[in-house]
Order: sequence, then C-alpha cells, then structure tokens
Amino acid sequence: MQFSAAQIAPLIDGRIEGNASVSVSGFGKIETAKEGDLAFLANPKYESYAYSTEASILLVSDEFTPRQPLSPTLIRVKDPYAALAQLMQLVEQQQASHPEGISPTALIAEDVELGEDVYVGAYAVLEQGVKVGRGVRIYPHAYVGKGVTIGEGATIYPHVTLYHDVKIGARCIIHAGAVIGADGFGFAPQSDGYHKIPQLGNVILEEDVEIGANTCIDRAVMGSTIIRRGVKLDNLVQIAHNCSVDEHTVMASQVGLAGSSQIGKWCKFGGQVGIGGHITIGDRVEMGGQTGVISNIPEGSVLMGSPGMPLREAMRNFVIQPKLPDMYRRLQALEKELAELKQQQSK
Amino acid sequence: MQFSAAQIAPLIDGRIEGNASVSVSGFGKIETAKEGDLAFLANPKYESYAYSTEASILLVSDEFTPRQPLSPTLIRVKDPYAALAQLMQLVEQQQASHPEGISPTALIAEDVELGEDVYVGAYAVLEQGVKVGRGVRIYPHAYVGKGVTIGEGATIYPHVTLYHDVKIGARCIIHAGAVIGADGFGFAPQSDGYHKIPQLGNVILEEDVEIGANTCIDRAVMGSTIIRRGVKLDNLVQIAHNCSVDEHTVMASQVGLAGSSQIGKWCKFGGQVGIGGHITIGDRVEMGGQTGVISNIPEGSVLMGSPGMPLREAMRNFVIQPKLPDMYRRLQALEKELAELKQQQSK
Amino acid sequence: MQFSAAQIAPLIDGRIEGNASVSVSGFGKIETAKEGDLAFLANPKYESYAYSTEASILLVSDEFTPRQPLSPTLIRVKDPYAALAQLMQLVEQQQASHPEGISPTALIAEDVELGEDVYVGAYAVLEQGVKVGRGVRIYPHAYVGKGVTIGEGATIYPHVTLYHDVKIGARCIIHAGAVIGADGFGFAPQSDGYHKIPQLGNVILEEDVEIGANTCIDRAVMGSTIIRRGVKLDNLVQIAHNCSVDEHTVMASQVGLAGSSQIGKWCKFGGQVGIGGHITIGDRVEMGGQTGVISNIPEGSVLMGSPGMPLREAMRNFVIQPKLPDMYRRLQALEKELAELKQQQSK
Repeated sequence: MQFSAAQIAPLIDGRIEGNASVSVSGFGKIETAKEGDLAFLANPKYESYAYSTEASILLVSDEFTPRQPLSPTLIRVKDPYAALAQLMQLVEQQQASHPEGISPTALIAEDVELGEDVYVGAYAVLEQGVKVGRGVRIYPHAYVGKGVTIGEGATIYPHVTLYHDVKIGARCIIHAGAVIGADGFGFAPQSDGYHKIPQLGNVILEEDVEIGANTCIDRAVMGSTIIRRGVKLDNLVQIAHNCSVDEHTVMASQVGLAGSSQIGKWCKFGGQVGIGGHITIGDRVEMGGQTGVISNIPEGSVLMGSPGMPLREAMRNFVIQPKLPDMYRRLQALEKELAELKQQQSK
Repeated sequence: MQFSAAQIAPLIDGRIEGNASVSVSGFGKIETAKEGDLAFLANPKYESYAYSTEASILLVSDEFTPRQPLSPTLIRVKDPYAALAQLMQLVEQQQASHPEGISPTALIAEDVELGEDVYVGAYAVLEQGVKVGRGVRIYPHAYVGKGVTIGEGATIYPHVTLYHDVKIGARCIIHAGAVIGADGFGFAPQSDGYHKIPQLGNVILEEDVEIGANTCIDRAVMGSTIIRRGVKLDNLVQIAHNCSVDEHTVMASQVGLAGSSQIGKWCKFGGQVGIGGHITIGDRVEMGGQTGVISNIPEGSVLMGSPGMPLREAMRNFVIQPKLPDMYRRLQALEKELAELKQQQSK
Repeated sequence: MQFSAAQIAPLIDGRIEGNASVSVSGFGKIETAKEGDLAFLANPKYESYAYSTEASILLVSDEFTPRQPLSPTLIRVKDPYAALAQLMQLVEQQQASHPEGISPTALIAEDVELGEDVYVGAYAVLEQGVKVGRGVRIYPHAYVGKGVTIGEGATIYPHVTLYHDVKIGARCIIHAGAVIGADGFGFAPQSDGYHKIPQLGNVILEEDVEIGANTCIDRAVMGSTIIRRGVKLDNLVQIAHNCSVDEHTVMASQVGLAGSSQIGKWCKFGGQVGIGGHITIGDRVEMGGQTGVISNIPEGSVLMGSPGMPLREAMRNFVIQPKLPDMYRRLQALEKELAELKQQQSK
C-alpha cells in the first residue's frame, strides 16, 4: 500500500510543506528511516536527525522551525505523536486479521454467557458463571476463573490467569502471563508461624485499562482492589491487595505498590518505583525511576530518589552526592584549622 | 448467613461489649464497612475510624480504650488480626466449593502416583515419575515436570511450571505463573562468549510454604535451592540458584536474592529488597522496602537504604540527605571565612 | 557411574596432583561436598574450605598455592569454572533423556514448517506461518504466534508466549513463562486519556541467547527490539520496546530497561539495575545491583548506586553516607565557633 502526503494530511488535520505527491509505504524511526518511510519528530532531542533522515515524509509540530534545509516533505500537525498514533491505528485496522470463532478445544462451562463475535482460542478454559461481552478476544491457554466477567471488546492474551470473581472492564487489554486476582499477601503472625488470612475480596478493572505482561494484581482481603478506567500498567508491575489506582494513571515496568495504597488520577510513575503500604498519593504526581515512597504525597508533586525528594532537590543532591567523601575530608581539615587558630589566639 | 456477636465471640475466645444480639453477614474494612459488617481494629493508625464506622461489630484488642463513645458492638480479643484470620477461615471453609476430580483432558503419565481426593484440572500435564499426595489440587494448565513430588494438601494454581525433580512440601500454595526449578543463571565466561553451566541440582520447598504469582525459584547448580517450612514469598520474587531461606521468613513483592545467599529464620523483607550473592543474613533480620545488601548481616538487625544501614541511622540520614547541597555551600563559606580570618591574623 | 582422576584430567586438559586412581560419582560444592564428590575452587573467598572439604577431587587453577596440606586429589586447570562447566555438560549429555516427537495434543497450523528431530509437547499451540528449525524443543503449553521463526536447536520451555512475528535464533533457550513480543508501552496522552500507539514492530533474538523465567521483551513500535547473539538475561528482566542489547551482555534478575535504550557488548549488570529511556551504554560496562542510570555511560565504566557513580567513588560514598547526620552537627558547631571567634576578634 502506498499513500501520498496529499492523502495522509487530511486524515490527521495536517498542513503539507514540500512535495505533496511524494508517497510512503511504512513507518520508520527518524534516525533509521529509509526512502518510502513516514517518520516523526516529537522529542526535540532527535531534531538533528531531521536534517539527515532519509524518510520521505516527516510529521512535525506546528511550532517546529527548521534551522537548516531538510529533504522530506513535512506534514505539520498540532501533536505529531498523537497524529502518528492515529495513522498507525488506521494501518493496524487494515492489516490485522483478528482471530475469530470458538476453538473446539476451548473448555467452556455450560452456564458461561458468551456475547456476539467472541473469539476463544485453543485450550482456553472458562469456568462456571463466566460472562463474556461482545467482541471479546480470549487467546489460547488463557484461564478464566469462576464468576469472572469480561466487558465488551476486551482482549485477554495467552497464559493470562483471571482468578474467580475478577471483573474486567470494556476494551481492557491484558497481556500474556498477567495474573489478576491471586491471593493478597496477608498472614497473621503466631508463635508457630504465619497463619493465612483468606482473601475474600476481588479485583475490579474498569474500562480501557491495559495491563502488561506478567504483571500481578492481587485480590482484596475484603472489598476490591480497584484499577480505574484508562489506567495503563507496564510489564512485571505488582499491585498488592486493597490498592486503588485512579483514572488515567500510568506506571512503567516493575513498579510495586504495597497493600492498601491509594494512587490518584493522571499520575506517572517511572520504572521500579516502590510505594509503601497504606500510603495516599495525590493526583498528577510524577516519579522518576526507582523512587521510593514511605509517606503520603500531595497532589502535583514531582519526585525522585529513595526516599523520594522533590525533583529539583533530588537533582541538586545527585550532583553533590559524589562530593560527599571530599566534603568529609574538608570538614575534618576545617575543624583542625579552627582548633589551631583558637589555640594560637589563646596564647 | 447471619451470625450474632453472641455466636461469634466464643469462636475466637472474645468478650462482648454492647448488644450481643446484633448480627453480621460479612466482613468490611473499618473505614468503609456498612451496617451488617464485621470490621476490626489492629493498626492504631486507623483508630479514628472506630468512632465513625458503620460496622455492626468491631473486633478490638483487650487493651483498646475508646477515647469517645462508639456505636458498634465490640468483641475484645487478645489479637484482633489473628481472630479475624480465624473467622475468615471459617467463612471460607463454608463458602468455598473446591474443585474435584481428574479432568479427562489432564495428561497424566502412566507411572504417576496420585493420592486420594486429588483434583487435576483441565489440560494440566503431569510427566513421568510424578508423585502427588492426598488432597492436592492442581489447577488447569499447570505443568508438573518429570520426577516432581507434591506433598499432601498442596495447591498448584494455573500456569505454574514445576521443572523436573522439584519437591513441593505438604500444604504449600503456589500461585499462578510461578516458575520453580528453572536453570540457575550460571555461565563460564570464555573469549567467544559465555558457556552454560548445566544446572544439575533441584529445588526443595518444605511444608506450609506459600509462593506468590510469577515468582521464580531457580534450581541449584548442584545440591538444592531450599525454602524451609512456613516461608511466605509474595509475587514476582526472585530466588537464585543455591539460595536457602530458613523457616518462617516472609518476603514482600519483587525482592531479589542473588546466588548462594543464605537467609535466616523469621526475617521480614519489604518490597524490592535486593541481596547480593554469597551473603549470609541472620535470623529475625528486618529490612525496609528497596534495601540493598552487599555484606553479611547479623541476627536481629533492622535495615533500610541502599546500601542498607541500621534503621535509626537510615531515618536520620533521610532527614539530612535533602540538606546536602545546602551543607556544601555552607562548607565552602566556612572555608572562605576561615581563610580570611587567618589572613587578617597573619597581618 | 564412577570416574577416576586419571579419566577426568585429560577431558579438561588438567594436571593431577595426588592419587590419580581416586574416583568420584557426582559434583558437590566445596563447603558441603562428601567423599566421592568432585568439587571446585574458583572464588578465592572459598579457599579455606579447600583444607576441610571432604571432596575426593578438587579442581583448582594452575596458580593455586595451598597454604597447608589438603586431602583431595587436585586437578589443576587454567580456569576451574570453565573446566567444571565442561564436565557438567558431559554428565548432562549422558544423563538427560530429552523429550522427543510431536504430541498428538499439540495444535499445529497446517502451514507450519517443522525441521527434523523436533519435539512439540502436549497442548503446545503453533499458529499459522510458524517455522521451526531442526532439533528444536517446544515444551507443553508453549504458545507460538503467527509467523514466528525458531532457529535450530532452540529450546522453548512451558508457558512461554511468543507473540506474532518474533524471531528466535539458533540454540536460544527461553525459560518458562517468558513473554517475547508483547506490545511496547506506548501511548499518546490526550485530554480524555491515553491513546494506544499500535506496536507494529517485532522482537529479534539472535543465536545463543538465554532468556530467564518470566522475563519480558516488548515488540518495537516500528522496526525491531534486538537482542544480539550470546546475550544472557536472568529471570524477571524487562526489556522495553526498541531497545537493543549487544553481543555477550549479561543481566541479572529484575533488571529493567526503559524504551529505546542501547546497551553495548560484554556488559554485566547486577540485579535490579534500572536504565532510563533513550540511553546509550558503551561496551564492557559493569553495574552493581540496584544501580540507576539516567544518562549515557561511556565504554568500560564500572558503576554503582542510584544514580550510578564510578564504583570507587560509590564505595567511598557508602562509607561516608552514614556519617552524614554527624557531619551536619559538626558543620553547625563549626559555624558557631567561627562566629564566636570573629566576634571576639572584632572586640
């Protein structure tokens, strides 16, 4: 398939600068794109590539002012990254041949309710009382426990485990190996060992949630562990029992939340962030990778470090930190000098 | 099901304060419980909710002295958390309809020994030489490798992989996606790359061990990686080859142990703790989240930070840490002042 | 099976010191080996065990000079660890009865190309367009998506998920639960939430790569996420979309790479290391456990700490770090003393 700049621009509300008849057949990253590729420039860090790229079309923002001539045809848009997403979605919809039908090897309990246009792959297991909405895709080897509900248009990839009574909202995407609804980590210490606290609650994912591969979300001890609509969790994330993560919060890989933490809306956590138990994080909080949090964090904070400090403070700290041994020596020297000075004076 | 305070108290050796005939039909957290719920107060942090909770019955400790009147009927017990655990276990035993029987789609090698009352779910695979104790539950899609033994009453959840010759003790619980017995990470560096060291040992889990979802425990290069009785590991934990974890130690999510580490009894590790290789940790050591350890740690230590410091030291450090850039400026100022003073004097 | 020192030495190009006719039937660690075991001494930290070990044969390096008499027969080799690897490989080849044949329950699409001597275990699923090289072993419950290619002699363990169009090189080993090719974490933020960026690229593993249990490698947004030949990744590692990891780099468990990071050859990362996005790491870089990296790192660096510092600097830092509160008090005291001194002088 070939598309010209003239065909592409109206799809993304863009303005063409250069040869409108040049055409592309695929996407490329600005630094490695070839002739016939469409590339984009969103991160200013990559601007230098704009002048050397072999891409035939380059998506840029309305504000972009080239510092030297460039060879690709430009399409100017408000938000190049969002425009790219739109184009890629169009391509994906045309390319993808989504799997269909119910595999004869899928084991589906008698009382399971399946919506229209549902795909259930080979060897998938759906236990009693499961309800599956219209257009849901359940890939091979998925395990759907008793009483689970899956909303319209959701996708459950291979080897996902949904424990009993978990609720998955419409259009959620659960990547391979994710485990939703395993027992929370709850034990009562006794002299002869730890006694298990049965975890009688469940997990609720609202709509449009995406869960990464091998991520774990534990069921509540009572009530629900809740992931609100639009939340995106990367791979290998841990959400402990009775946590709640509010709308449109995103967490990168290997983030861990201890039990009963409450996370606000529109937060952004970098990779390997750790949040202690029973902690409340306000809306729009951002954290750099490996940040550790052991106290409540107010709305709008930007943190880094373990334990987390305000970003500016942390960055200043990171600069001074390597000077610490030198500071120690200088402090000792000062003490000595001052003592000598005082001794001289007292003579 | 409805239970009155009068019915509940004797089950947990409790004393009633208030209306003994009030009854409940479920559990609730103290901050969100509704009428008809039983809630509990164990963590003093939550005491204020005791005066506003809508719960009908509240489990409290013998020592609890209300600072103002409260509406729920109180049941006083020695340890509210343990009493709650007991009640929840009673409820779970009544509610749960545990799966039974051997699925016709389970693939069980001819020489496998199955105890009485064993459940083997759909598409589970049990290879040659496997021995399964009485009352064991093996969920759909579990993979049980050659020569594995599983003790009485153990539970193996979906998508668990037990590599060959792993030994699982009685009453162990292995959550979905856990991998027990994959090759340890052992390679001999050579000029043309890393040569694999075959991992000829195995993994032994003693009785009453619980392993979280997607946790990995590697087989020993020779001998055994050993998890002693009563150990509880949360989700996404990594135990490398030839480690041993002694009785009743608990580790929160995403903890990682490098090879040949030896962990004592009754330790408690917070989330994302990292332990270096060939390290010995004494009994009853506690570590806060994200603690890093690169040397042996004596019995009874309480650590935090990376690298780990004694907790009090770490907490003081965390307070001073943000002042570091300010300290640096003040140190420079002092040096300048002192130099000026000395110059003045030498005149 | 029994092997004498005289039989073993020529296999590993070793020289015997002591009784050449003593024989062994297994391997043991130097600290726990019994009579009839072969043990090895590679790490000097373990030298003291050489004088107390019950092992019958001890592999040591050419340079090893005993400080006191020892009882085992010594076999001297250039590299004891590599020699051990060689011996263990010989034993493994003799012991192991590798699984064979195609299980009748494996679901293999009509157009799949299978090489000679391929094993496909129970309930494995191979989708359309898959190509499997000679001698490949695919264990039960593995999922191989559309268009995947698997090179000669590779091993795919149970519950592995290979998403569509992933390429696995010859002799790769993918441990249980690993997920290769799930969608990268790419979203365009909009006022109503995050819009998914389709991930249209793939993942390429070159030859001789080993991937640990439950490790995740995401598919590229466009182009490929690339793991070069000889790379070894431990369990629970996260490789984000569009990363590249160059030849013979090894990463311990729970390491995380954010998107588009480029890692050099022959690097060694300890456990829980975190690398930010769009970062370039040179060849032969080494990092201690929990190191955090937020800027490019030149070839040959050795780092520790978060953020990472040169190792020597970090070790000095770790020593001074606990003195920080004391330094603060001493700094305040100095300021006071100096102020007093100046006041005295001005009188």
